[in-house]
Amino acid sequence: MKVAGKPSRTIWLRDDGWSVEIIDQTALPHRFETRTLRCLDDAALAIKDMLVRGAPLIGATAAYGFALAMRWDPSDRGMEAAYDRLFETRPTAVNLRWALDDMRTLLREEDAADRQGRAYRRAAEICEADVEICASIGREGLPLIEAMAADKPKGEAVNILTHCNAGWLACVDWGTATAPIYMAHNAGIPVHVWVDETRPRNQGAALTAWEFGEHGVPHTLIVDNAGGHLMQRGLVDLCIVGTDRTTAQGDVCNKIGTYLKALAAEDNEVPFYVALPSTTIDWSSRDRIAEIPIEQRDAEEVTHITGRTKDDEIVSVAIAPASTAARNDAFDVTPAKLITGLITERGVLEASADGLRAAFPETPKV
Amino acid sequence: MKVAGKPSRTIWLRDDGWSVEIIDQTALPHRFETRTLRCLDDAALAIKDMLVRGAPLIGATAAYGFALAMRWDPSDRGMEAAYDRLFETRPTAVNLRWALDDMRTLLREEDAADRQGRAYRRAAEICEADVEICASIGREGLPLIEAMAADKPKGEAVNILTHCNAGWLACVDWGTATAPIYMAHNAGIPVHVWVDETRPRNQGAALTAWEFGEHGVPHTLIVDNAGGHLMQRGLVDLCIVGTDRTTAQGDVCNKIGTYLKALAAEDNEVPFYVALPSTTIDWSSRDRIAEIPIEQRDAEEVTHITGRTKDDEIVSVAIAPASTAARNDAFDVTPAKLITGLITERGVLEASADGLRAAFPETPKV
Repeated sequence: MKVAGKPSRTIWLRDDGWSVEIIDQTALPHRFETRTLRCLDDAALAIKDMLVRGAPLIGATAAYGFALAMRWDPSDRGMEAAYDRLFETRPTAVNLRWALDDMRTLLREEDAADRQGRAYRRAAEICEADVEICASIGREGLPLIEAMAADKPKGEAVNILTHCNAGWLACVDWGTATAPIYMAHNAGIPVHVWVDETRPRNQGAALTAWEFGEHGVPHTLIVDNAGGHLMQRGLVDLCIVGTDRTTAQGDVCNKIGTYLKALAAEDNEVPFYVALPSTTIDWSSRDRIAEIPIEQRDAEEVTHITGRTKDDEIVSVAIAPASTAARNDAFDVTPAKLITGLITERGVLEASADGLRAAFPETPKV
Repeated sequence: MKVAGKPSRTIWLRDDGWSVEIIDQTALPHRFETRTLRCLDDAALAIKDMLVRGAPLIGATAAYGFALAMRWDPSDRGMEAAYDRLFETRPTAVNLRWALDDMRTLLREEDAADRQGRAYRRAAEICEADVEICASIGREGLPLIEAMAADKPKGEAVNILTHCNAGWLACVDWGTATAPIYMAHNAGIPVHVWVDETRPRNQGAALTAWEFGEHGVPHTLIVDNAGGHLMQRGLVDLCIVGTDRTTAQGDVCNKIGTYLKALAAEDNEVPFYVALPSTTIDWSSRDRIAEIPIEQRDAEEVTHITGRTKDDEIVSVAIAPASTAARNDAFDVTPAKLITGLITERGVLEASADGLRAAFPETPKV
């Protein structure tokens, strides 16, 4: 997508053919800065310190980190060291593990001398595959927005609400929930996006608003409390959100607060879609909604907020009494019954075991 | 309620018998500071600059402001000037107008020489009446919490979720939504409160968390996104919120985001109560839910947050890209169908035209 008028990805190979450039997302939305990764350690720190975030981008960065490691030490020992170093950065990230396993399995079959070249080719393939999946999600979701636009007076924008950042910054390009929106915008369909700020980490205010602003998609920032009211007033035509994990039954585990928007959408008959690459589907899941494990994060994310002062300094400020305890659940579960459809690379599916199974018949039954 | 172990109100007459002390709520939660009001202008600025906020407290401060004005100029002209000066501070505050009309009507019947004494007595009466109404709400709501506690294993806390600040800081003492909670806590019933931070102005994080912390009521701060998830996990026994305006049909116009919590409460069969003094009931209301007028506030409340740096400075920081537009609806409407009951000074009522009418038969039909 565009940054300051020019197309960009979140990660790319530099002209020297070996070093890797990333956007430093910790500086957004206040500064656009890129960083060069030149060794395994650069890549590991970029993941650990969340310069890159979002499952697909973490996987892509780990793959390039592996390639950088092979440039310096393609021995078996170098390979194991690279695996361990990258894996420990964010051990609960499913995509990180997947990328590392994929890379190691592949490189074990190669002679040490060939590992560097193979690793770079594989990292590039992983990036292209992610771009292609997101683009497919965009193409599958686009008709939903086209149909809404066709029902409106000519020129009137389709109002879409989104939560958190399931945008291109989390992927290599396009994003998941944002892909249909970018495609509609690029096709000249008037769209306007309500961007939930998404406390506590404010990925909506910091990342999604920045993305849309740079690409030129009309949007308005709102607090997480506002979406239900906007739906009551007829100001939301559809919701599209992402997901971190989708159960085999079609329930969706996404950023905390998604469930509240889904309830409001149902109460106001606003279609509620979840966009996802099929890699987020956990085919083995059997948990009931109240049993799906939810990450508990640091209370300081709730009691403090980081922002830019008028002197352009980035500072963290406390917003509660110093002694106040806080609880910080990172995700919630939106039951399948509240979801109008799942936008996947294989089409818009019913959020149910049958809907998912029919589209992915090759998946082994658990 | 208590501050640092000592009982306090939000406004009181000083020992000199004429000057008035208030808590400067703009300094909360970071500093506890009181201010002395010695003239009309002090009172007017305290209201305008929101050192005091909350409908009942604004009314009480205006009444004392009128009394202070009578001390300096009890003439007819002085009275009209006091009315105008106080009214212009927050012209849309219904309680402000009510207190000023009440004061002026009363004082017009007095000779100039008697106005000061009458005004101070009336201001004190207005404060006592508010305390009594809040205490009644507390007594009427207390049995709801007692019943929940009785159903729990001994010693296990009743978990109550509240939104925004309908606490004693908005009133003279007790608060509305918080009154039953304080009474339960004072009676030794174990309670624990989930405090919604309540973006964009963060009255939950700044005021409600401070109140409970000072009085010693166990509580945990959460982001506004979290309440639905906590209800899904069985961690909320009941919700109690306040209201700015209640329709004659039992719909409730309260801080933005209230509606989302009410939806989640319904979906999880958690009782959802609204506490209110009957003065917030608009007996003439005929609007449908989507027509009730909602105040639009400054976008900067969404794009910026004020807090305390580690150097103990209070600063405002931007949390979104500088060019981002924001929308800031201050309230939303929770339809009566989602409300389990209205806790009023005359008991817990059904949220309906019949329920309200039966408890307030003296109210003229519109």
